[in-house]
Amino acid sequence: MGEDRHGQTAIVFTSARTADDEEGYSRAARAMEALAAEQPGFRGMESARGADGIGITVSYWANEESAVAWRAHADHRAIREQGRERWYDWYRVTVARVERGYSWTGG
Amino acid sequence: MGEDRHGQTAIVFTSARTADDEEGYSRAARAMEALAAEQPGFRGMESARGADGIGITVSYWANEESAVAWRAHADHRAIREQGRERWYDWYRVTVARVERGYSWTGG
Repeated sequence: MGEDRHGQTAIVFTSARTADDEEGYSRAARAMEALAAEQPGFRGMESARGADGIGITVSYWANEESAVAWRAHADHRAIREQGRERWYDWYRVTVARVERGYSWTGG
Repeated sequence: MGEDRHGQTAIVFTSARTADDEEGYSRAARAMEALAAEQPGFRGMESARGADGIGITVSYWANEESAVAWRAHADHRAIREQGRERWYDWYRVTVARVERGYSWTGG
């Protein structure tokens, strides 16, 4: 939690789920998270999705190159196509460079 | 959805809710969202919280100065104290500068 993410590339993926295929979606989401974690330059991921179907996943990468390489990964591309066909009403992606961060943990 | 956020400051707020005071928390969260939206330089906000209590809110600001001013806002400070006392087990904040983005909407 206290990682220094300065200089990392953060990818914010915001999406709205369709009502379809929760099982297939969950399986794919878990597989993609595991695959991302194996990629060079992966530095972390956090995710939340509410009952309204809106979800936000933020992944952190050592640098721009590793983030771009993940985007181009063949399995990631293939799952994105399924995502557009079945799982998402819309999504947006924001790429940002981390400047600083801080954290708090209750006592 | 197709906003150009290049150069904006993104604040990623990731948090774990306690099980306490859902009503008070929801009320405060709505009030803070409305107050943020009135601040100079506010450019948008998106939020998701799952059943596990983990939430991510990303707010976007015209520049570093407006993001810092929001952090220092008296009402925001006061609510943060309540958050640490009652609503959060932990949280972390990541400040990043947006480089690019894209979006997709289903047909």
